[in-house]
Amino acid sequence: MKKLLIASLIALTAAAPPTKLLTPTDIVNAAPPSAWKTIPADNVLVMDLASGGRVVIQLAPAFAPVHVANIKALARGRYWDGATVYRVQDNYVAQWGQNESDKPWPAGVTAKPPAEYSRPLKGLSSTVLGSPDPYAPGAGFSGGWPIAYSAKANWANLAHCYGSVGVGRDLSPDTGTGGELYAVIGHAPRQLDRVIAVVGRVVDGIDRLSSLPRGTEALGFYKDKAQYVPIASVRLASDMPAAERPSYEYLDTASPSFARYLKVRANRHDDFYIRPAGGVDLCNVQVPVRKKA
Amino acid sequence: MKKLLIASLIALTAAAPPTKLLTPTDIVNAAPPSAWKTIPADNVLVMDLASGGRVVIQLAPAFAPVHVANIKALARGRYWDGATVYRVQDNYVAQWGQNESDKPWPAGVTAKPPAEYSRPLKGLSSTVLGSPDPYAPGAGFSGGWPIAYSAKANWANLAHCYGSVGVGRDLSPDTGTGGELYAVIGHAPRQLDRVIAVVGRVVDGIDRLSSLPRGTEALGFYKDKAQYVPIASVRLASDMPAAERPSYEYLDTASPSFARYLKVRANRHDDFYIRPAGGVDLCNVQVPVRKKA
Repeated sequence: MKKLLIASLIALTAAAPPTKLLTPTDIVNAAPPSAWKTIPADNVLVMDLASGGRVVIQLAPAFAPVHVANIKALARGRYWDGATVYRVQDNYVAQWGQNESDKPWPAGVTAKPPAEYSRPLKGLSSTVLGSPDPYAPGAGFSGGWPIAYSAKANWANLAHCYGSVGVGRDLSPDTGTGGELYAVIGHAPRQLDRVIAVVGRVVDGIDRLSSLPRGTEALGFYKDKAQYVPIASVRLASDMPAAERPSYEYLDTASPSFARYLKVRANRHDDFYIRPAGGVDLCNVQVPVRKKA
Repeated sequence: MKKLLIASLIALTAAAPPTKLLTPTDIVNAAPPSAWKTIPADNVLVMDLASGGRVVIQLAPAFAPVHVANIKALARGRYWDGATVYRVQDNYVAQWGQNESDKPWPAGVTAKPPAEYSRPLKGLSSTVLGSPDPYAPGAGFSGGWPIAYSAKANWANLAHCYGSVGVGRDLSPDTGTGGELYAVIGHAPRQLDRVIAVVGRVVDGIDRLSSLPRGTEALGFYKDKAQYVPIASVRLASDMPAAERPSYEYLDTASPSFARYLKVRANRHDDFYIRPAGGVDLCNVQVPVRKKA
């Protein structure tokens, strides 16, 4: 019997089609509808540039509630009418807002928010990255977000990855209101983790910011106001007419599909990849987000 | 006596000027001339775009000697006359060369170079990063370059960081000749380490590539040839007239200045940084390189 079993196995193996080694994209494309979570429309901030380009930001109220509430009040109060992108520093950030204007805050804005640079880890579900993180005792994903954390000291923060959106501020104890925002357009500046309030990430159109000309002044500020990139409007998707409202979904970081995706991001073995790394850094995982039809 | 000593110390403390907490830039600016190493002119590749922008690349013959020799032969044989940047993929790479042309190789080009994806660690001096690396057992710096390595298995590779230049290739066993090159313009794609030959890094003008419009075809290829960005010339600095030849130097990664710089990159404590990270990832260190007067 034993011999036969072996023979059968060999026959089965020989008959099997060659295993297709899946790419991360294959895994994302095969994820069932249940693995995707819609981003609520009142957490979707739509910034239209005057040139016609659109930048869409997902807000993260679970991590920086007062700053996110401010950003919603600023959008509804049309604070960013006449705003510009006035700073683009290569391999770092693109920054926008009213720059040094004295434009008053709309109703509902907290002028001095608390330092929402991190939050308690307790209360967050999380999927562990599984590779060491140079910046924190632990790293992983929670509710679709890349996070760094300490289980022992009970803190967690949104990581500064490519596309992350944070709140410009002056020196401490100032934490910024949210009127001046930046998006990361280069290698993850993780040294900013727990030093600045991260309020979300660009989920569509980051290339509209990353391909802008770099500013030539210190810190990438544009030298002449003529170089400023005008912003036409900043609106919450929930405040837009239903027919115009864009909608996005992210791959649930607690789903089996994401676990498979994460494993392959750390172990590329398809076609081109002759040698899987056996690890991946937090910001190189890139949680999949896509526009809903 | 004891009491007096304490009193003296207090007095001294009170009288001392406030300690200035150094930024990484402060440390670089204070580095003595002996801490800087000139990049040999025959390892400096100068690519001028037809639009007027210049991109300068430092070549790394210690890591990919056959590919680097190819690149020198390609430059001297004017292989890149009429070449273009034809692929710009956001948060990944800008790629240039002759694309799918059948232009013949100039004299001296090895058509099928060996897989110079890594080299023996033995023979390289190295400065240890001191933070964990998700992609390799060890990480650090050698001769001004960010490297990942295994002491046990005796390999080392140039890491794919922002600005790194690698050799486009087809599927293995093809390794590319060096005719098609790319530069990293986003978060470090370290999954490419030991999978592709890295031949150098952009030391000046990376923003000329990173701010280009993104290609809209798969993998960031430009859709129309009209979008291709023409390259005027690619020359070795050593082949340029002395008066026109640009010269660069890097902070010696074995110098005490670099050790101080590295420490502060992992522990920002100046002004803005209320909470030092206590770690830094290899590609976020950014070995200082500057143009010589």
